[in-house]
Amino acid sequence: MRYGIIGTGAVGGYYGARLAHAGCDVSFLFHSDYDYVRAHGLRVNSPAGSFTLGDVRAFSSPADMPECDVVIVGLKTTNERLLPTLLPPLLGPDTLVLLIQNGIGLEEDVQRMFPTVSIAAGLAFICSAKTKPGVVDHFDQGSINIAGYGHCDMDRLRAVVADFRKAGVEAHETPYGEARWKKAVWNMPFNGLTVLLEARTDELLADDASAALVRDLMYEVTDAAAACGVETVGRAFADKMISYTRSMVPYAPSMKVDYDLRRPMEIHYLYTRPIAVAREAGYEMKRMEMLRDALIFKQRRSLGLSAPAGKA
Amino acid sequence: MRYGIIGTGAVGGYYGARLAHAGCDVSFLFHSDYDYVRAHGLRVNSPAGSFTLGDVRAFSSPADMPECDVVIVGLKTTNERLLPTLLPPLLGPDTLVLLIQNGIGLEEDVQRMFPTVSIAAGLAFICSAKTKPGVVDHFDQGSINIAGYGHCDMDRLRAVVADFRKAGVEAHETPYGEARWKKAVWNMPFNGLTVLLEARTDELLADDASAALVRDLMYEVTDAAAACGVETVGRAFADKMISYTRSMVPYAPSMKVDYDLRRPMEIHYLYTRPIAVAREAGYEMKRMEMLRDALIFKQRRSLGLSAPAGKA
Repeated sequence: MRYGIIGTGAVGGYYGARLAHAGCDVSFLFHSDYDYVRAHGLRVNSPAGSFTLGDVRAFSSPADMPECDVVIVGLKTTNERLLPTLLPPLLGPDTLVLLIQNGIGLEEDVQRMFPTVSIAAGLAFICSAKTKPGVVDHFDQGSINIAGYGHCDMDRLRAVVADFRKAGVEAHETPYGEARWKKAVWNMPFNGLTVLLEARTDELLADDASAALVRDLMYEVTDAAAACGVETVGRAFADKMISYTRSMVPYAPSMKVDYDLRRPMEIHYLYTRPIAVAREAGYEMKRMEMLRDALIFKQRRSLGLSAPAGKA
Repeated sequence: MRYGIIGTGAVGGYYGARLAHAGCDVSFLFHSDYDYVRAHGLRVNSPAGSFTLGDVRAFSSPADMPECDVVIVGLKTTNERLLPTLLPPLLGPDTLVLLIQNGIGLEEDVQRMFPTVSIAAGLAFICSAKTKPGVVDHFDQGSINIAGYGHCDMDRLRAVVADFRKAGVEAHETPYGEARWKKAVWNMPFNGLTVLLEARTDELLADDASAALVRDLMYEVTDAAAACGVETVGRAFADKMISYTRSMVPYAPSMKVDYDLRRPMEIHYLYTRPIAVAREAGYEMKRMEMLRDALIFKQRRSLGLSAPAGKA
């Protein structure tokens, strides 16, 4: 199968490079990294084995890329508006689009842009970062759950799972709703709180008060999931996520990295959409609303945007 | 009537000085300011009229102070544990203790320390600060609501209200529960949020997201008050408090001043107690719990306290 990577960052870059390193045919779209990668290749530093891809199928424009059997989208969701431009050149009649992105509501929006395409959600449990051109630093974890959305071609999805495994990535097929909400259990508390309290994951869990706050926020996500009909994401799973995070290396999630680099944060798909989805199902995510509002305030200040005059 | 002031700070110092300036007999307890005030007097800078009290009845120990008809307690509630030492020398059989302090649960605790004493709550709507020895800076507002608690001597309370008015302070007698909860409507959102978001009141209200957050937090207080049987503190009052704050000078509430000066914050009486009181009445203040936990985290970091190892 021919793979295309849109958004060759900490996540898309990592999985794309793993697949290519295992012999898959992978075309990468680069933006600012293009010249560097053409000259030096794509480097992955990883406890699971470091390597450099010397001969990278690198592209600087989607128009030059081949039609792909599978497109992996690793874009920041703050760039989701670019998909109607970036995706079409890579799409054939049977292309599977795998969205390895954070949040709730992504598949719905992309399916609306491309009604006939096969869409899958990729839930990556990975600590990685790309802080300089052509180098992905992988710190910890790395598994991925893949879930078919709507009328997704499940045979192709299973072939992708098989390719990931062949590339040394722990990959599993999971039900869609469960997969997205399980990821939200970790993502929603830790991304926002590390920004709000200017702290790493280990610092949040080392303090009783903030650890209680993490837990309360996680329970709010599992309660929201239950309200949305996803009963399999219970409080026991939240407790497991906390233990799992205690065992992780101290970590700044992607939203904290974005905030520190004064980049836009993924507030819409990580907070605003899931809060709206839960509200539609009759559940009010009060704590998350508060976190979302605080993040919007911090984002405006961090980006130097003047606050619009507001009425409360 | 003879007045004694315990806690001669931004609030106790302001009202005590006003009373003394109007001719009342007022004894002040000073701590670090004692020598300065003996030498230079007590200065009030105020849009309602600035003045210096030259001949201040200043004391450095409560043991030297006279028995008082009225003791005004303006201590930070973080020093509430000092009251069993500070108060007894000033108490006669009919002394009224007026607690001009922030929070919920204060009268209950002080009554437990001194079961027979008359206690009143003073709810000051004032913007003032004491940032250097012997000088109180009064910026805005200044009215006070006074409410009798339990078996309070109401005749004496009314005499105090009359003295305040004589001293040019807008003073009203109000029902106890309503008074405390009305103050909480302003105090709980603004004290915590100015610390959490490192912002003044005007900055919080100029941004749509944080203004919505202020409003949601205020409504949580009015809902808690209703759950506690105080139905007169409704959402319309919260809306009024927001308009009132928009008309105020940009302001850092006392908790923000404490935080910036790396002093302990009044988290217990401003958050932990009202949250517990509301929970006992069957109402869960979810947003305030979140704010409280975040403030505890920020306080520990600000005071350089190592976080205790915690389990979530």
